[in-house]
Amino acid sequence: MKRSNCPITCALDIIGDKWTLILLRDALFAGKTTYGEFQSSSEGISTNILASRLKHLVKEGIFEKRQDEQNKLIIHYIPTAKGRSLESVLGEIANWGLQHIDGTYSPIHRKIE
Amino acid sequence: MKRSNCPITCALDIIGDKWTLILLRDALFAGKTTYGEFQSSSEGISTNILASRLKHLVKEGIFEKRQDEQNKLIIHYIPTAKGRSLESVLGEIANWGLQHIDGTYSPIHRKIE
Repeated sequence: MKRSNCPITCALDIIGDKWTLILLRDALFAGKTTYGEFQSSSEGISTNILASRLKHLVKEGIFEKRQDEQNKLIIHYIPTAKGRSLESVLGEIANWGLQHIDGTYSPIHRKIE
Repeated sequence: MKRSNCPITCALDIIGDKWTLILLRDALFAGKTTYGEFQSSSEGISTNILASRLKHLVKEGIFEKRQDEQNKLIIHYIPTAKGRSLESVLGEIANWGLQHIDGTYSPIHRKIE
């Protein structure tokens, strides 16, 4: 059930936590697609939170699952158009962090086209 | 302790929850400043979460507390420059919500200058 019809509130019900947008960052800017790749990020996400967030991202239509063509045991999580359109949110959050939080820096990102 | 030096991660450690940005929305777009005003929003925030989030916002330098000039028992929570600079984050989240979540709509906001 929705808390309200406010687009900010409804969006925060999907992306308002400490991990969802980090997984999207890794997908959009580092080209990560697999469970193991997401798990390797420096933030040290736990396996149960990673599994739960990937499921959440697929359920919300932000990632879609694709079987690997060579090895059908490997699942790739790929941002959908809905997921890619969160890039501007990530960009504004990054700008704010760089401007206001000491010790943050912008790595050289490889943008996936 | 920081999870990483990524500006997105560090920002999410401050704003990555379901309530912090809603209180900032109410301050920036509806001119709310007091505990009672924040509590009246349609999302129905509980008193303990509201108290905890206001304290968090002051601690992080996003709101500052000011005593009411007439009634010293009333405290106003006013966005700082650091808080106001989150307006572009809120704007991008609102745009994404309006575009991708059915049933959301943009109320007529009164922007506080």
